[in-house]
Parts: sequence; structure tokens; C-alpha cells
Amino acid sequence: MENGEIPEDANEHCPGPRSDSAGKSDACQGCPNQEVCATAPIGPDPDLVAIAERMATVKHKILILSGKGGVGKSTFSAQLSFALAAMEFQVGLLDIDICGPSIPKMLGLEGQDVHQSNLGWSPVYVEANLGVMSIGFMLPNSDEAVIWRGPRKNGLIKQFLKDVYWGELDFLVVDAPPGTSDEHISIVQLLEATGIDGAIIVTTPQQVSLIDVRKEVSFCKKVGVPVLGVVENMSGLCQPLTDFKFMKMTETGEHRDVTEWVREYLKDKAPELQNLIASSEVFDSSGGGAEKMCREMGVPFLGKVPLDPQLCKAAEEGRSCFIDQKCGASAPALKRIIDKLIETHGFSRMLVDDRA
Amino acid sequence: MENGEIPEDANEHCPGPRSDSAGKSDACQGCPNQEVCATAPIGPDPDLVAIAERMATVKHKILILSGKGGVGKSTFSAQLSFALAAMEFQVGLLDIDICGPSIPKMLGLEGQDVHQSNLGWSPVYVEANLGVMSIGFMLPNSDEAVIWRGPRKNGLIKQFLKDVYWGELDFLVVDAPPGTSDEHISIVQLLEATGIDGAIIVTTPQQVSLIDVRKEVSFCKKVGVPVLGVVENMSGLCQPLTDFKFMKMTETGEHRDVTEWVREYLKDKAPELQNLIASSEVFDSSGGGAEKMCREMGVPFLGKVPLDPQLCKAAEEGRSCFIDQKCGASAPALKRIIDKLIETHGFSRMLVDDRA
Repeated sequence: MENGEIPEDANEHCPGPRSDSAGKSDACQGCPNQEVCATAPIGPDPDLVAIAERMATVKHKILILSGKGGVGKSTFSAQLSFALAAMEFQVGLLDIDICGPSIPKMLGLEGQDVHQSNLGWSPVYVEANLGVMSIGFMLPNSDEAVIWRGPRKNGLIKQFLKDVYWGELDFLVVDAPPGTSDEHISIVQLLEATGIDGAIIVTTPQQVSLIDVRKEVSFCKKVGVPVLGVVENMSGLCQPLTDFKFMKMTETGEHRDVTEWVREYLKDKAPELQNLIASSEVFDSSGGGAEKMCREMGVPFLGKVPLDPQLCKAAEEGRSCFIDQKCGASAPALKRIIDKLIETHGFSRMLVDDRA
Repeated sequence: MENGEIPEDANEHCPGPRSDSAGKSDACQGCPNQEVCATAPIGPDPDLVAIAERMATVKHKILILSGKGGVGKSTFSAQLSFALAAMEFQVGLLDIDICGPSIPKMLGLEGQDVHQSNLGWSPVYVEANLGVMSIGFMLPNSDEAVIWRGPRKNGLIKQFLKDVYWGELDFLVVDAPPGTSDEHISIVQLLEATGIDGAIIVTTPQQVSLIDVRKEVSFCKKVGVPVLGVVENMSGLCQPLTDFKFMKMTETGEHRDVTEWVREYLKDKAPELQNLIASSEVFDSSGGGAEKMCREMGVPFLGKVPLDPQLCKAAEEGRSCFIDQKCGASAPALKRIIDKLIETHGFSRMLVDDRA
């Protein structure tokens, strides 16, 4: 009710609390909310007005979605934000995964607090042009579960949009939890009037993940959010052969570690193999992967990012994968995707023009 | 309100609609629900009575939880159910992931429908002793998103518990979505009175996943559900060296596929390497992984399951990993975990005794 929305359990013809006939129509007879609806002032939801004011200084709003969890959505959100900030855009990253916030760790901001000023809640800054907001900054104890039902999660998301002082932003990147439920409905409803540029959907090549991506695409179509594109993540493991460990199966079925022996062997007897990169399709992509799905559903395919243990490590350590050569297997792929995104949607040109 | 629960947005001293002072206490003054609460019949929620009746024929109820998505929770739930069924237990698998149901696919039951009889909704059966229930069986179009807020998801979960005719079960395995929100609170509240044996928590060795597992353990402690143990999944990739593809980096930075050449080379010049198993810690576990976390939080560690592309494939194809030798890298590890679980909790002994 607090948003002026029609409540979930309303009867079929409920006019909603902001309608002219709120509390007065036939359908309102016997409703426990009748009196509240009939007497409450009617007009635009003051919270939506406050959100529109905050968002007036934000040029582009991009949602990062996934059907399934664990596909690297937060890693993508984090690295996209690092990349945009490195291109000198002013970037805000908002984490609306209330029960499992990963963003503070992935931006290297664990243990930081949110401060309040008379302008509102201050984001936590990685650098002057990269600010972050997450419930992770507000928990007294990071082990504690946030056991919240939908309405409370929605309330916090509204506060994030209403009360955070982002200042001038080129991009607000919103990292959503997996699925198509409270958080997703709320963020779209709350930002609708201010304009959402679109959503990037992250998936793995697995069928089970792609099934859920189709649901995510259908969600975007239903709520009117453009799909900017789909990223296939964990698209095969890719790493230097010499980074592997090697095991031999003994007669008793045990695994014996022979890594040292293999490294010596490669050096002495098979030097041609030493500089090879080994790759494995960890997740079965025989169904055609995300690219085929995108063709079928008529949405843009942005590209593949290999499963790179060094990228996982960068995410764990809250580092950008672009600042050194460690993530050689994944960073160039990510960069190509981000460049494609910016170019296709004219983001950079628009911003340069704006500033000229 | 429909459960007789205290609503989320109630004021601090709300006695709840089933209390003797419902609608009559000081706190009820001015509440829009006052009249409904004051006049509704007070007594046990009839839905909870119906659930208790359904659950009277279920010996053990096990929840499968995870903090993060994509850690292989549904794969574990599916393979646990296959394993228990192969041990001739009578097994029910209930999927309460409403927005992203993976269970139908993982049990090889895509496209199946739920049927109704005068006993209730019939589960879909893989075999006579393995029945499955999921919203996936009820969707006219699997691409369609289920865009539901919490109350509607909770309503369906209640129906699953109230209306599904499982018959006599040794085990009801409940596969939950990631997190600690509506679905989790509801399943615990609805099953509380009937007894929950406990929860198995699935994670990967990554720090970001372990952070969320700690939240999941804290959830279980808060709501009084015993933690049966933690499973570390995707604990390193493990596969025969000859299953990899090999690439060479050219001078221009391109990857050239040299797999055929490497296979020939191994055969002719390095036969000692041919039968090796290569393993890679895909996800950084330098933090000590789940085992260390379990020691710190005082919950049992059940074991590690390697990331095995063949297990992913079995899950995609809805097959048990135990019926052939394909999942040699993962199936024995899974089996050890399941045996440990059954032994530690005396599940098998109890059942044998029951039947004697």
C-alpha cells in the first residue's frame, strides 16, 4: 500500500489507493483498507517525486539481471563499473541484492560504512568517480542473515533510490539478485518514470541457466525495459597448461599428486607443450549457448567471457581486472563487450556531446 | 494476514490476528485491519492443520539451502534424491524456487504436467519411489517469467504443502532458492509444527559464496532448523587431460586451436602424460574454503565435490550420476557425502527399524 500500488491480495476490481474512486467504488465495500483509501490524500506518490528528483542528475540507468544466481552477475557489474570509471565516466553502482550482497567485497570495500549528510546517504567511494551503495555497508555483522520478506526489501530499495546522494552520474549500474520477483518489480516500478536505458542479462552456456534467461527476457519485455544485450559468462575454462595440477589414478582408485613430476617432464621432454593454453567446456553448451538463444528471442548477444580463475580471484580481492595483465584470458573479452555496448547505444558520443 | 501471521508492516505491539486480544489491544487502535482481526474466528490456522495431516506420512524433511545461487544446489538436490531412491527409500522432491525452477529439467521431467485427483495434486514420478513437484510443471510456456511478489510465492508454497498427495515418504527433500527471504521464512513457518530434520547448505569454495553461507547458517540458527552439514561444491575442476582442448597464442594475440596436434604429440612423444587427470582450482579457496568456515561456525562439514563437466552434463540431461561410470570425478564424492549424512543421522537404521 505504501507505494500507492494496488496490494497483492486486493480483490479483482480494486481501484488502488491513488485512484479517484479509492475507498468509494463498489469493490471497496468490506475491504479492511476502505477507510484509509477513502481518506488518504490522492495525488502522485511523494516518494516517486523524491526519486525523480534524485535521478534528475543521472544520465543512464542500466540494470544487470540474471535468471539464475552464480553466473557471475555481480562480477560483471563490478568489472563494468571499474571499466566505465577507468574511461572517466562518473559511475554509481547500486547493489539491490538485499539477502546476499556481494558488491562490497567485489569492489574491495568490505567493512566500510555509509555516512549520512544533510544531502542524504553518501555512497562509499572506490575512487572519486566510482561510488557504491549496498546493504552490505549497513550490517553490524556480516555473518548475520537478513531475514526479510518482500515488503521490507522493497522499502530499502526505495530508500536507496530516494535517499542516496549520488550527485552527477553518467551511469547508475544496478546489480539485481537473480529472478523476477520483488526486487525486480520494485526497481522497475520505482525507476519507470525516470527512464531506464535497459538491462544487461548475464548467463552461463548451460541449458538450466538459459531457461531462466528466457524468463528474464520475457520479464523485460513485459515490464517494458529494453534488453541491451546478453553476456555469456563462464564460457569454458581457459588457462595456461602449467597452471594446472596433475594427478595419477593409482590401482586402488586414489588420486596421487604428480604435478612436480609433470612440470619437470614438460621442461625436459615436451617443451613444445609448455606454453599452451588448455581449455575445457565446463558447462555443456551443446544446445548452442546464449548466442542461439538470443537469435531465437530477438535480443542482442554481447559476447562470451571465459571462466578465468584469475578473474574469480580479482573479484574475490575487489580488484579491477583491467589494470594489469593477470586476467589475460578474460579481461580482453570483457572489454570488447563493454566497448560494443557503449558504441551500439551511443553512450560515449552522447556524453562527449553533452560535455562539449 | 492469510496465515494468521503478524503482517510485515504491523506496528510494534501488534498481537497478531490469532491472538486472544486480536483487534482489541491498545496497539490495534487505528489499524486498518482492526475490525477483521477483532471479528475473525480465533484458533489454529486451518491451513497449518491441513499441512500437518499431509506431513503425517512423511518421515524425514530435509531442506537444501544455499546463500548464493549457481553453486549447484539444485544439482545436489536432484542427485541426493536419485541416490536415496536408488537405496530404495521412498522419496519426494519439492522445488520451491518459484521464479527459476530447475528441478524438472534436472530430473528429466521437462514438459510433464501435474495431475489432480480427489487425493490432491499428484507429483510427477521419475520412478515409483521418486516423485517431484515444481511450479515448472504448471507453466503453459517455459519461457514465460513468473513475475510474482512474495505473498503469491508464499501462497503457492503453502499449496504445495497442503495439496500435494505424496503418500508415504521416507524423505521429503525441499530445494529452496538462494537467500533468506520469503520462500525460506514460509517453508520453515509452515513446516515448523511438523518437524524439520534439518538443512544441508551447499556452497562453492569462493569467499563471496562463503560469506553468504555464513548468513544461511545464521538463518538456520535463528529459526531453529538444525544444520545437517555443509557441502563444498565445484571444489576445483577435475578431468582427464585428454578431454581438454589446447590452444596456442599466436604473435598477434589470437588463440589457435592445436588440440589435434597435441593429441598426436601425447600419443607419439609423451605417452606418460596420456592418462593423467588435470585439476584446477577454478574458484580461489585460499581462504580455507567451507571446511574452515564450518569449524569456525560449529556446523558439520560433509565433504567436497569437484567441478566435473560430466556431472553438469548429467544434470542438464536429467540423469542420475550414479548409474554409470561417466561421472567418475564427482559421483564417488557425492556418494560419500550422502552415506555420511545417512549414517551420522541414523536415517537408514531408523528406517530399517521402522520397517522391521
